[in-house]
Order: sequence, then structure tokens, then C-alpha cells
Amino acid sequence: MNFSLYILGSNSALPTKSSFSTAQVLSVHERFFLLDCAEGTQIQLRKFKINFNRINNIFISHLHGDHLFGLFGLLSSFNLMGRKNPLTIHAHKNIRKILNNHFKYFDHNRQFEIVYNFIDEDKPKLCFEDDKLSVISFPLKHRIASSGFLFQEKKQPDHIIKEKIVQYNIPLSQISKIKNGADFITPDGKIIKHNELTIPSYKPRSYAFCSDTIYFEPIINIIKNIDLLYHEATFLSNEKIRASETFHSTPADAAKIASMANVRKLLLGHFSIRYKDLSLFLNEAIQYFDNTELVSDGDVFEIKKSGEIIKTNKFT
Amino acid sequence: MNFSLYILGSNSALPTKSSFSTAQVLSVHERFFLLDCAEGTQIQLRKFKINFNRINNIFISHLHGDHLFGLFGLLSSFNLMGRKNPLTIHAHKNIRKILNNHFKYFDHNRQFEIVYNFIDEDKPKLCFEDDKLSVISFPLKHRIASSGFLFQEKKQPDHIIKEKIVQYNIPLSQISKIKNGADFITPDGKIIKHNELTIPSYKPRSYAFCSDTIYFEPIINIIKNIDLLYHEATFLSNEKIRASETFHSTPADAAKIASMANVRKLLLGHFSIRYKDLSLFLNEAIQYFDNTELVSDGDVFEIKKSGEIIKTNKFT
Repeated sequence: MNFSLYILGSNSALPTKSSFSTAQVLSVHERFFLLDCAEGTQIQLRKFKINFNRINNIFISHLHGDHLFGLFGLLSSFNLMGRKNPLTIHAHKNIRKILNNHFKYFDHNRQFEIVYNFIDEDKPKLCFEDDKLSVISFPLKHRIASSGFLFQEKKQPDHIIKEKIVQYNIPLSQISKIKNGADFITPDGKIIKHNELTIPSYKPRSYAFCSDTIYFEPIINIIKNIDLLYHEATFLSNEKIRASETFHSTPADAAKIASMANVRKLLLGHFSIRYKDLSLFLNEAIQYFDNTELVSDGDVFEIKKSGEIIKTNKFT
Repeated sequence: MNFSLYILGSNSALPTKSSFSTAQVLSVHERFFLLDCAEGTQIQLRKFKINFNRINNIFISHLHGDHLFGLFGLLSSFNLMGRKNPLTIHAHKNIRKILNNHFKYFDHNRQFEIVYNFIDEDKPKLCFEDDKLSVISFPLKHRIASSGFLFQEKKQPDHIIKEKIVQYNIPLSQISKIKNGADFITPDGKIIKHNELTIPSYKPRSYAFCSDTIYFEPIINIIKNIDLLYHEATFLSNEKIRASETFHSTPADAAKIASMANVRKLLLGHFSIRYKDLSLFLNEAIQYFDNTELVSDGDVFEIKKSGEIIKTNKFT
């Protein structure tokens, strides 16, 4: 029942030895979703000891190299490791052309199917759903089509109070329904309210990934009240012009969005390699949104069922 | 006047967190030649603090992903870092198709020229030459066309003996000629032999890179008597059948080649991820060729002018 975000890469286009370009894994109830796939992603997955076979969905925000050049090696490794399960890639429609071109020269013997799910450039789209969570893509604003992804855990069944089962002699067949919201009707027609029989389950958790994008208010309604928001912050505000020319954000931009969307916590990443002192990013952001943190490669942000967000780093 | 080999990646197709797939840099007199370019090469270059702008020649042995998937990110980074100098890529002719396909979707604004130098699949070819060294490509035998590369330093001028300049009153204009092998003729026609006037320069150094290949005796004459040979050894001899099916070598294969070619030192790499104890590779090789060493990421093998080969590791 986990809900954990793994930071595989925290830099923008130019990686360094300790800060790779963008990739993350969100793990929800032991499912593993890969978000972007920069060069070296498969190496970072190994550092985290994440089982490659557990990844069945890859979400690519946009088709710039620093967000997907790791895909070639990862797909090749999937194949070498004997993958047979289909892999779904959620991305802009050009991803199919790029990979079809690629497969003309590499991995001719691919043993697994790639299922493409093209994101909608113009509006939000439900792109994944199972019994535990849903994932929605939504438009960002960048030099080329770019998508954010919102992961929302589904409400889990409430906990039934054991004493009430005895008290009302509730049959086994009714318990699942009651956990999922039903009232109980006794044999003599009396209605016992769901609320009396159960302790509420924890509040469903949520995460949104927004990279790359310029400051873009239309996303606010989509990410409203979520637990955790990752928003790119490539340049400091003293390079605001450079940021807007390249359709990137500043920490102030990201923090304003976080504040207006009333998220619980903001994570900043996608830092330009030009900055040696990243604390300037934090200083700028907290002027607009206090609960902000910078990400580093190896960070894990775990949202507990209690709502508490705990950070550890697995690479240090 | 250095001659140093940097090991950027030592594993075969599947990289781990500490052993990337194949890439090396040979530095000769402060020129930097990149040999193969697996995923993560640009990250390893940063670990070694090798200046990207010093790389003007990339040699790709063959067009399998684990030898070139780092090229996409590296070319992109060259561009982002403002490269203007042309880059020469020495590789099989299909490299141009692969990169032209790639450039349809990435790095549209590339500011530097790529010069292609196609290797000859059938015979050795001089593919680079300047005043310090020459590089020859030569056919290996793999599932697809694959090339070895032989780097040969040119003989450096001998050292003229100062006392002889005085003794024979040798004019400045003659000194360079004498250093490069000429005799000196005195004004009265007497011939003073080059050998009497000079102390010989050091012996030119040489390195050959042979990966990927099955055991292939035709390379022996080409790499005869070189200082340092890197030869792939993917599988141990107990998986000889798997090695020959996939056109790879065992440590015994590599060591037999080294012995017959009378090289000074053999380096083994391109290890399959299946082996946890790599000392088995060394044990097998030294039965046929004693002066063998296994490579690891971060290793630097420096051939001194004295001929001594010194190993250090920059990543530990």
C-alpha cells in the first residue's frame, strides 16, 4: 500500500556525474510507473534495486532528448532480460515514429509488444486506470507539446469494526459491500448506517509531475489540493527572460502555481547545470510557498497513509 | 606526450551501477579519441573530468546499441555546450542513416558539422593520421560488421647531444633534420653519422581495441608486437558454445591472440553481467598469456615513455 516517488535524475539537459537528466519512478501499491527516461535511467533503476520487470508503463512528458534518451538502452535491456510482457508507453504520438525508426537498426528480435497510448495535446486525458489508481495526462506549455501527469490513488475500503459484526450479526457476504460504503439492513429491516459500522480508510494520496513547462495557470485546477507536486524550475528569476524564451519556469513560477493549487508539498527539479549553489532555488521558492524541497538523485519521497511525507536518500 | 587509456565502461550489453557498457578514451599527446560510446558515456567523461571539446574523433566498433547509445546524448550535449568544431565519426556506413533518422526528431539546431569516415568492412584502412599518431581500422568477426582500431604513435625526434653541436659547429638550421634521422656533413665533406650525434627517442607506443569479436586469427598480424591490447572476453570457456553462437570471445581466446601477436600486455573487458566473480576471467586468461589484467570503470592505463604501463583508478 505504498506511495513513493523515486528521483532518478534531477538535472535539466546536461547531466553531471551525480545529477542525471529527468527520470522518476512513482510506486503505488507495488506498481512501478516510470516518468520520463533520460540517459542512464536503467543505471539509476539498478542503484534503486527496482526490478525492471515491474515497470509496465512509461510516461514521457515530451520528446526532448533529455527526457527520453534512456529509452533506447532500457528497451534493449528489457529484451535482453527476456521480457515478454507488453510495455505501454504514454507519450506524444511522434514517439511511435521515433521508435519505429530506431527499431529499423536495433533490437530486431524484440520479444515484447509496445503498446502506444498517445496523450492529447489539447486537454486532459485519462491514460491509465486500475483498482488502485488513475493517471491523467494534461497539457503543459513548452517549446513542443508537453504533458503533465496526475496520479490519484483510489479510495481504499473503510475498516469494519469487529464488534459491530458481532453486535448486528453481519453475514460475511455483506462485509465487502459495507467496507466500500454500503449501509447494513438487519433482517427486521432496520438500517445501520455505514458510518456507525466502520472506521474511515486513509485519505487517497496524489502526485503530479509537471516538466517541462513555462508558468501556466491552466494546470492549477487539475492539480488542486494534491499531496505532492513536482514542478520544473530550470532558471532563477534573475534569468527570467532566458526562462521565458526557452519556455521554462523559475522557482517563483513553480511556487506560485503550488500556492494557488493549494498543494501540500512542492518539489523542484530540472536545474540548469549553470548553478553551483542550488539553495538559491529554495530561497526564491519559499517566498511564495513554504513547504518546498529541492530534489536530488537518489531521493525517495514516501507519502504515508497518515499523510506524512518522509524523505530519504538511497544513493548516499 | 602522454599515452593513456581511460576505461569508461567495462560491461557487455547490460550495464550495472558501477560497470557501464563499452566506452574508452585514448589520450595521445593531449588528443582525446573516444572509442565506442555506450549509454552514460558523457557521465563517465565528467567523472574523468575530460573536456568534451577535446574530443574531435569518435570511433565506433560496430552498430550494436551497447556500443553507441550514448552518442545521442553526447551529440546533444556537444551542441548545448556550444560546440562549433566539426566532429569526425569513424564507423560502419549505416551510422549516417541512424544519425540522419535521429536528427529528424532531435537537435534540429545543431551548430557543428559531423564528418563521417566509413570503415572498410573487408580490409584495414588508415582512418586518422597527424604528426603524432596514426589510427588504422581493421575487420573483426562478429554478428554484424565490426572493426578493431590500432593506434600507433609516430616516432618522436631523437635528442641531439649538445656537446656534439659544439664539437662539429652544427648550424641551427641542421638540428631538426638531424633529430629526425639525417647525418651531418661538415663543411669539408666529412659525414658524421646520426647515431653519433643523438640519443634515440623513446620507442613509439601502441594500443589496439578489439571488441566485439569471436576468436579471429587474421588480426594477429595487424596487432603484432603492440604494447597494449584490449580484447573482449564476454563469456568463460565453460560457455564456449554460447560465445561462438553470439560471436563473442572467451578469456582463453583473447589470451591466445595476445600470445600469438606477442603484445606486451592484454586487457580484458566486455564481461557478461551473469558473472559475479570476474577473477575467473583472469585465471582462465593467464593460462595462455601471463601479462593480463581485467578492466574496471575508472581505470587509467598509462604507458610511460619508458614503456612501463601504470594502472590507477580515478573513480575509487
